Amino acid sequence: MESGARVASTPGALPCYVALSQLLGLTVVAMTGAWLGLYRGGIAWEGALQFNVHPLCMVIGLIFLQGDALLVYRVFRNEAKRTTKVLHGLLHVFALIIALVVAVFGYHKRKGYADLYSLHSWCGILVFVLYFLQWLVGFSFFLVPGASFPLRSRYRPQHIFFGATIFLLSVGTALLGLKEALLFHLGAKYSAFKPEGVLANVLGLLLAGFGAVVLYILTRADWQRPPQAEEQALSMDFKTLTEGDSPGSQ
Amino acid sequence: MESGARVASTPGALPCYVALSQLLGLTVVAMTGAWLGLYRGGIAWEGALQFNVHPLCMVIGLIFLQGDALLVYRVFRNEAKRTTKVLHGLLHVFALIIALVVAVFGYHKRKGYADLYSLHSWCGILVFVLYFLQWLVGFSFFLVPGASFPLRSRYRPQHIFFGATIFLLSVGTALLGLKEALLFHLGAKYSAFKPEGVLANVLGLLLAGFGAVVLYILTRADWQRPPQAEEQALSMDFKTLTEGDSPGSQ
Repeated sequence: MESGARVASTPGALPCYVALSQLLGLTVVAMTGAWLGLYRGGIAWEGALQFNVHPLCMVIGLIFLQGDALLVYRVFRNEAKRTTKVLHGLLHVFALIIALVVAVFGYHKRKGYADLYSLHSWCGILVFVLYFLQWLVGFSFFLVPGASFPLRSRYRPQHIFFGATIFLLSVGTALLGLKEALLFHLGAKYSAFKPEGVLANVLGLLLAGFGAVVLYILTRADWQRPPQAEEQALSMDFKTLTEGDSPGSQ
Repeated sequence: MESGARVASTPGALPCYVALSQLLGLTVVAMTGAWLGLYRGGIAWEGALQFNVHPLCMVIGLIFLQGDALLVYRVFRNEAKRTTKVLHGLLHVFALIIALVVAVFGYHKRKGYADLYSLHSWCGILVFVLYFLQWLVGFSFFLVPGASFPLRSRYRPQHIFFGATIFLLSVGTALLGLKEALLFHLGAKYSAFKPEGVLANVLGLLLAGFGAVVLYILTRADWQRPPQAEEQALSMDFKTLTEGDSPGSQ
């Protein structure tokens, strides 16, 4: 904060942490691709390799893109708020669309497997439902013009908490899926420190690391997006008019 | 906040959320016991049932007690700060001691299994190391009198972030362990919706729910422990003396 008008400046360490998060996120995507390519025969839209589309799409959509969508307000802190909001909403839509390319039910049906029996699948369905609801409620509060300023201010902390929780649940669900894939495929060989097992364990730790770095950037109070001069003036007007809650800083 | 002197009062909804967290935590402990008792032959210090001590101790120590240790500053908000600190540190010590009763290496040795090959075990070791380091650093900053006030204020947010992250990693590690136990024991029967599988899936969702509720109580800004009158006076004196950072609210 350089002046009394709170000119939006970028804190010194923020770009380093954002770079670390992107490095971790891209490594996770690349390692998932490498794991599927090296040990599972790659991916394909038809046939037995169709199932491999599922982990790759989930890691790109519900891990990497979802994580990046959460960081939009920290990274584009000097842009107009409406632009940032639209980008935040759009990234979540992309994440959801890519993740919807699951292809997993079709594969299960062909193989005659039961659906939705495992903890991974239960958590996955929960993530999908919560993610979709969170998007709908967020859209109607923050992008549709109807909601009043005090109402938005009151809902904002809930939106941030549930967003972070859904993201963490997504990371946990991915870890469960990875473990499932390892135990189904490797079985007893897992304990012999086979290269696939070690690669997948490292992938799991990097997944958890990506989640932790995104959470750190998101929760550092002094890295929150400061309101720009015109937003601050506007919020002060609203405050005077409504005598409601004090406006949030994001 | 009722008066200018910031008399410590308890926010209306806080007790309900704390009660919910305790209900979830105790249900998780009871369900883990029920799962081991009903489907794994119970627990014992010797013989084949020795391994079952591991999940029960971990759920009591690194899930329930660790979660409760995080909530101490919210629940005992009107007690003296030093008492609360000591309770926070002690609960973490109990959690660590109970969790140390792992008995898992001995069991593996007897059965001739390899140690530390799975993602669950890698995450588990990481949790242990981080938990122990966090406790040591926290102890030397906040309980040993040496650290200065500005140094404590600067470290406090890091301590809170890492504490919450280690807790969440513990919950994730427990979910991975549960999944491992199910796939090893049930194998293909898992997909037939056997009662053990359904019970364990519900247990997994409740574990995640406990993590989410603890995180919610911990991150609600208006539920933080307000400094008591004498602490506030003291911190203002320090601030005037050092011209350092503004004192935190916890």
